[in-house]
Amino acid sequence: MPAMASHTAYLTFDTDERRQFVRITDDVRRAVEESGVREGMVLVSAMHITAGVWVNDDEPGILADTLEWLDKLAPPSWKEPANGVARELSPDPGDFRHHRGGEDNGDAHLKNLLVHHQVVLPITEGRLDLGPWQAVFYCEFDGGRSKRLVIKVLGE
Amino acid sequence: MPAMASHTAYLTFDTDERRQFVRITDDVRRAVEESGVREGMVLVSAMHITAGVWVNDDEPGILADTLEWLDKLAPPSWKEPANGVARELSPDPGDFRHHRGGEDNGDAHLKNLLVHHQVVLPITEGRLDLGPWQAVFYCEFDGGRSKRLVIKVLGE
Amino acid sequence: MPAMASHTAYLTFDTDERRQFVRITDDVRRAVEESGVREGMVLVSAMHITAGVWVNDDEPGILADTLEWLDKLAPPSWKEPANGVARELSPDPGDFRHHRGGEDNGDAHLKNLLVHHQVVLPITEGRLDLGPWQAVFYCEFDGGRSKRLVIKVLGE
Repeated sequence: MPAMASHTAYLTFDTDERRQFVRITDDVRRAVEESGVREGMVLVSAMHITAGVWVNDDEPGILADTLEWLDKLAPPSWKEPANGVARELSPDPGDFRHHRGGEDNGDAHLKNLLVHHQVVLPITEGRLDLGPWQAVFYCEFDGGRSKRLVIKVLGE
Repeated sequence: MPAMASHTAYLTFDTDERRQFVRITDDVRRAVEESGVREGMVLVSAMHITAGVWVNDDEPGILADTLEWLDKLAPPSWKEPANGVARELSPDPGDFRHHRGGEDNGDAHLKNLLVHHQVVLPITEGRLDLGPWQAVFYCEFDGGRSKRLVIKVLGE
Repeated sequence: MPAMASHTAYLTFDTDERRQFVRITDDVRRAVEESGVREGMVLVSAMHITAGVWVNDDEPGILADTLEWLDKLAPPSWKEPANGVARELSPDPGDFRHHRGGEDNGDAHLKNLLVHHQVVLPITEGRLDLGPWQAVFYCEFDGGRSKRLVIKVLGE
């Protein structure tokens, strides 16, 4: 009978940029190896409400396209809207209601909704079972301070 | 050798509002405690196609900002579009094709896509391993009738 | 003491259409049955960065509404934008930066972000524990070639 196993690892980020994609595929792979799990799942989850985790291609053009597009869909209020659509997708009261408490990261909460804060990845024969182009990214939307992410491996 | 354990709980919602965020962090926590699981994961999943589950800050400004923004991105056809962008993001045939069957909740299906119907959360040392600001919300987009959500705990 | 079990299955798609929703609920159900798992979770995950997995209603109107709407939010550059909003949500450099390498599927990466590449579904008493209207779809956004998806069952 196979034994159940679990393993937990935490990563900490302190990005230079306010918004930044950080590739963490190797960190997830290392946690899977340390766990000894042969068959199972690994949860990769930002512990913040202004960050996300995305699985996509590690191609600089895609990442730049994505950030430009996210700033149109969920426009920051600390810079001029990119165009008329971004202006109309900005909050109607003129600024985010959330900013009444002194914050300025309302857009980062909406980007968190679009990107999502977590993914679950399969483990097969002791390895992260990703497609050839799938890389794992931590997506910082309100950086410049210390943020955490948890990796939880579960399986046999 | 640690024993595997699982636990299942169901929640039922019947919201007053058509669209409403309902905080369920404590319900998820309770299910984790009842499971006896020390290390593992918990799946929190709406059983409907017009609802979602979101992890974010329990701050009323954010929730109001988010609902306004979701109504621009995925505009209901039972009320006037919020502005020109919402009008252009409405379906081209004038109304949702889905409404030909008598429904009026086409926008709720698109909000389900944006928010997603489920999250998976980590359990560490017997506790829900969330960041300090992470709260779990059931997101109702077509309320006024009974809806269900399943919580599934798995671990050791 | 319940024994842990896992099971893995792969599906391959080669859609006729560039964009297509393929219902896979029965394939997931079959993998769950083959696993013998009574209580647990099943991960359903596209192995590509231009595809997604969505749980929603198998109603043709919804699927047509959704595809039209996704083409406004994440507009392809290989066809005329649907309207002014789609034009403004297109990349500012005139075309996706990603296309400088010869690709033409930049929009499919953004649709992957909106829809997400994976879902996790609950298993209760040996059955996929879905609501009455929840169907599972593989969402192809850049078809016409062979694509894979992995189903990973974990539980007891």
